[in-house]
Amino acid sequence: MAKELKELTKRAENYSQWYNDLVVKADLAEQSAVRGCMVIKPYGYAIWEKMQQQLDLMFKETGAQNAYFPLLIPKSFLSREAEHVEGFAKECAVVTHYRLRAKEDKSGVEVDPAAKLEEELIVRPTSETIIWNTYKNWIHSWRDLPLMCNQWCNVMRWEMRTRPFLRTSEFLWQEGHTAHATKEEAEKEAKLMLSVYAKFAEEWMAVPVVQGVKSETERFAGALDTYTIEAMMQDGKALQSGTSHFLGQNFAKAFDVTFLNKDNKPEYVWATSWGVSTRLVGALIMTHSDDNGLVLPPRLAPLQVVIIPIANKPEQLAAVSEKVDVIVKELKTKGISVKYDDSDNKRPGFKFADYELKGVPVRLVLGARDLENGTIEVMRRDTLEKETRNIDGISDYVEKLLEKIQQNIFNKAKTARDARIYECDNYEDFKERIKDGGFFLCHWDGTSETEAKIKEDTQATIRCVPLGFEQTEGVDMVSGKPAKQRVIIARSY
Amino acid sequence: MAKELKELTKRAENYSQWYNDLVVKADLAEQSAVRGCMVIKPYGYAIWEKMQQQLDLMFKETGAQNAYFPLLIPKSFLSREAEHVEGFAKECAVVTHYRLRAKEDKSGVEVDPAAKLEEELIVRPTSETIIWNTYKNWIHSWRDLPLMCNQWCNVMRWEMRTRPFLRTSEFLWQEGHTAHATKEEAEKEAKLMLSVYAKFAEEWMAVPVVQGVKSETERFAGALDTYTIEAMMQDGKALQSGTSHFLGQNFAKAFDVTFLNKDNKPEYVWATSWGVSTRLVGALIMTHSDDNGLVLPPRLAPLQVVIIPIANKPEQLAAVSEKVDVIVKELKTKGISVKYDDSDNKRPGFKFADYELKGVPVRLVLGARDLENGTIEVMRRDTLEKETRNIDGISDYVEKLLEKIQQNIFNKAKTARDARIYECDNYEDFKERIKDGGFFLCHWDGTSETEAKIKEDTQATIRCVPLGFEQTEGVDMVSGKPAKQRVIIARSY
Repeated sequence: MAKELKELTKRAENYSQWYNDLVVKADLAEQSAVRGCMVIKPYGYAIWEKMQQQLDLMFKETGAQNAYFPLLIPKSFLSREAEHVEGFAKECAVVTHYRLRAKEDKSGVEVDPAAKLEEELIVRPTSETIIWNTYKNWIHSWRDLPLMCNQWCNVMRWEMRTRPFLRTSEFLWQEGHTAHATKEEAEKEAKLMLSVYAKFAEEWMAVPVVQGVKSETERFAGALDTYTIEAMMQDGKALQSGTSHFLGQNFAKAFDVTFLNKDNKPEYVWATSWGVSTRLVGALIMTHSDDNGLVLPPRLAPLQVVIIPIANKPEQLAAVSEKVDVIVKELKTKGISVKYDDSDNKRPGFKFADYELKGVPVRLVLGARDLENGTIEVMRRDTLEKETRNIDGISDYVEKLLEKIQQNIFNKAKTARDARIYECDNYEDFKERIKDGGFFLCHWDGTSETEAKIKEDTQATIRCVPLGFEQTEGVDMVSGKPAKQRVIIARSY
Repeated sequence: MAKELKELTKRAENYSQWYNDLVVKADLAEQSAVRGCMVIKPYGYAIWEKMQQQLDLMFKETGAQNAYFPLLIPKSFLSREAEHVEGFAKECAVVTHYRLRAKEDKSGVEVDPAAKLEEELIVRPTSETIIWNTYKNWIHSWRDLPLMCNQWCNVMRWEMRTRPFLRTSEFLWQEGHTAHATKEEAEKEAKLMLSVYAKFAEEWMAVPVVQGVKSETERFAGALDTYTIEAMMQDGKALQSGTSHFLGQNFAKAFDVTFLNKDNKPEYVWATSWGVSTRLVGALIMTHSDDNGLVLPPRLAPLQVVIIPIANKPEQLAAVSEKVDVIVKELKTKGISVKYDDSDNKRPGFKFADYELKGVPVRLVLGARDLENGTIEVMRRDTLEKETRNIDGISDYVEKLLEKIQQNIFNKAKTARDARIYECDNYEDFKERIKDGGFFLCHWDGTSETEAKIKEDTQATIRCVPLGFEQTEGVDMVSGKPAKQRVIIARSY
């Protein structure tokens, strides 16, 4: 593609525009012809595939199995769980007909009115209803439990304001749906899956997250508890990056799913559901990238190493290429993905900028002079530091460097985040400081009135009650009422 | 699940019912609450996942990259290519609204008439139109070509008569869409992908296939040529198992996709598309399975080996389990998937029947007496042959046995198929014999009239003009007109 490497908007100028620019310029995604839906381009999709592979492994280690349930959900199913339908009705894409016909004047096609469905079908916004309707036939006895299914699929929520990866009308995700014999087991599962998400975010995406519980207002529609991982973007805003729901017996009751316990008595089944989506790609971009482009953690980078030759004459290029072949082979043996870019239609400087934009973690440059000296130039994308090294042992060095980069970008993100987590006890103070972003640990009286007032005054919301945080009692900064705990308040995407 | 291992319908009694029974009893899939859409259960999905993994590798080896395009397609896009819309209009699920609202009497939800879309959206039956509309922005110069994207996704074709895996309103598939600078290159790509499908079918699914070209009548809507792999089921019917289309410049013209060639002149782009779907799972089941249940090729079996203990006393079970642990470890080291089923709520005989039903290729049984004798019982699912072997070296033996089984079930399927490929030159003869199934190699005059007559008289269709088959001229058995080649005629799913 005839690509112009125009400069990105700087983060400091306009963070939001920087993000939109980057998504397009780095060939991750673009707006499609369908309102609010994006096309995920090969480079963006490759990141999602890497995420899927690792998450899928982690899910299977917990005993979950993949399955597939229908895209379309009968409208009446949605109504069965009162809160669920209230939460999703406003964003449902509705299939009403099953056939088109040629227009009389042959100018195109139109909906065939004779092909109206008896009951409208909803493009799934999430699949609790169709899955619990199915589980009814799969669960009879305590021996059928736990039942743990996951599906990788597309879902649709008709959003009014969309942004690539962060909020799109159609998105890709996985949704786990588990069924258990006891409340305790279901709660344990919901928490376990939260910890799986947190581990993936921190160890693979290099994105530090706060694990917590949502307030009632922010809960998933139909859940008794929603657990969340919250990441902080570079502008100090929160991004909800994954959720795990304890659904109690709500869906079991709505779809009449019971099991015979060990005493042969029927009981309603306990449920969880949990999901992460292509939003994670947005989280990844926003957390690490800089004014030169993407910065990708090596564990999720589609391409980990790029090698670029510098040669003016064909015989120089031949000599460089011969040496590069050896390095490529060594790196591949180590399971490292590597590309040798000897294309002759772009100058090295153009290539440097392009691979920086794409966030390739390590760049190696080998020129004719290097060959004479037995050296090679190594650049790491995270710090942009260059060094010239002995070419012997370079693949071992690169292998360790990739791990170092993975760790470094996590540390960097964590340091940046931790510096912007504030305890705050004064509402006037809060209202002023929240403008600059950050997570605010504030005492909360537990009422939705206070929550609503904060949102109205500042657009900030309670992100979660943090888990593993030593709580102390205090006074709600807004209402002045007694408060049992601090919550994290932030503006969010 | 409280499962009853009722007997399957016998193939000889009712092949069609046998298939439907088997899909349900082996826990592969079931009918959902949505007309024509199935739920793919974990065991069935695990087979599809194995297929995906291997196909994905093979696609990437050809240079294709994965991407993702929107589920919903603007209605007007479909009309751009005249034959395409004619082929798909009758099976389109149409989204007309984007919101539900509560009914006045609160008894549920209804479609909000105020949320009518300006232009209706079609749930993709295939994605040529939305993808070529996107390619317009990606392709400018010959340097942007070839462009080769694949997507794994769900599609919907509103079918009136459905059968699990073979024909469902929603199905999972992959669709590759490639763009090329020349006709020759596009034709080569279409044929290359056909050969990839054939290789996968034969080497992984152990299903022999005929590669061929479709007649004009049977072509994909919008293609200039449709290549196909055709498999023969045990009842002698054909199953179209994968297709690869040479689309010419049809979609490039419909969506105005041109590129500047090396002489800097604009030309329309040449296209292919190719796809296989969850129908392959149906082909797998129908080709190999028997009256006892599934027979799965080891390379695609979710579980390759099951080990069942025979022990009456706890201390016997402990001794058996200790020995099994060693075997399990050895098999896993070899990359073989294995399960030790020491569950105490089912008798060994029940387990035997269940794993036979599920088609696990190798069963090992270890009892207390075996331990004394240093032996183990091995049963292979494909032939149901049992033998008692020395327990030493058993994992090496199993490894080789799995390969032998893979080869054997291919050979068996090929022998059975080859015995039912007939040359036939007499139409009366044909009409009688086609009732018993089989592929008939008959001379065809190339007219759609003859094709239509054969279909009307016998329900059989021209499956393809076989590739790599030495053609001779002759006389069309129906019309008596001269014919340049023989085609394969068969009844099909």
